[in-house]
Amino acid sequence: MHDDLPAGWALTDSGLRREFTFRDFSEAFGFMTRVALEAERRNHHPDWENRWNRVTITLVSHDVGAVTERDHDLAAAIDCLVP
Amino acid sequence: MHDDLPAGWALTDSGLRREFTFRDFSEAFGFMTRVALEAERRNHHPDWENRWNRVTITLVSHDVGAVTERDHDLAAAIDCLVP
Amino acid sequence: MHDDLPAGWALTDSGLRREFTFRDFSEAFGFMTRVALEAERRNHHPDWENRWNRVTITLVSHDVGAVTERDHDLAAAIDCLVP
Amino acid sequence: MHDDLPAGWALTDSGLRREFTFRDFSEAFGFMTRVALEAERRNHHPDWENRWNRVTITLVSHDVGAVTERDHDLAAAIDCLVP
Repeated sequence: MHDDLPAGWALTDSGLRREFTFRDFSEAFGFMTRVALEAERRNHHPDWENRWNRVTITLVSHDVGAVTERDHDLAAAIDCLVP
Repeated sequence: MHDDLPAGWALTDSGLRREFTFRDFSEAFGFMTRVALEAERRNHHPDWENRWNRVTITLVSHDVGAVTERDHDLAAAIDCLVP
Repeated sequence: MHDDLPAGWALTDSGLRREFTFRDFSEAFGFMTRVALEAERRNHHPDWENRWNRVTITLVSHDVGAVTERDHDLAAAIDCLVP
Repeated sequence: MHDDLPAGWALTDSGLRREFTFRDFSEAFGFMTRVALEAERRNHHPDWENRWNRVTITLVSHDVGAVTERDHDLAAAIDCLVP
């Protein structure tokens, strides 16, 4: 159904993954806060890591152990939050 | 020394004040988080209020009961955080 | 229906209101972040202000111009987020 | 100098590491926000990851490629932010 990945995202063993790079920690964490709000609203949360200006997000539906529509939808929503 | 206020800021009885309007709550709170980081870094914190997509910030140096260089500097730094 | 206000909250002209005091700005803003997540999840957002270690929250249902069940529910949820 | 690690922290190849578990995402992200404020204040930032209610923090001084006093100090400060 999802032959096309959202631009910038890669399908890995762990899930749908994208790395984001920002100007500094503040811009990175401002983005993370908006992703957190979006995740809580959907009750679908990312696996993610941050190192200063970089944020790596991995999306997978843990309840079914696979990448689902929910992950594709969240990926698209996250892309809209990049400043 | 500060004949000129930073653009968009007004000098009120409470301090240096500016209202910011965003697209939605998420954008407003992402901005607030970045202002919080900047404030903590400087150990100089705003008086502020938020109502969905609006954030009103008032800057004053409470220790001296006046608007000081610190407030002008923080105002300029905050302006850089507007998306 | 709500003869009893949630403990600590007062019914004012602007809505259901409570002031919270924390140890410092960090504790106050950590609390605000959790309230933001809760508000976004419910799509019901507070009017609020912060001054260093104090957070004043006013809850009203702007769409009907009155305090409703949604405000009482959010007030109860917010009370659970106080550290 | 630091024969004793701060309680709960382990010295790994990547740095000083500790995993924190919270009740839910909201509590985890509220903690992360406070850590972010502390990190920005010190201009010393963690490598960290989050998966719903779990936060794993790794501290290392990237400029010298080793665990330093700054990491031990930040670890102690972070421990104080656990709710």
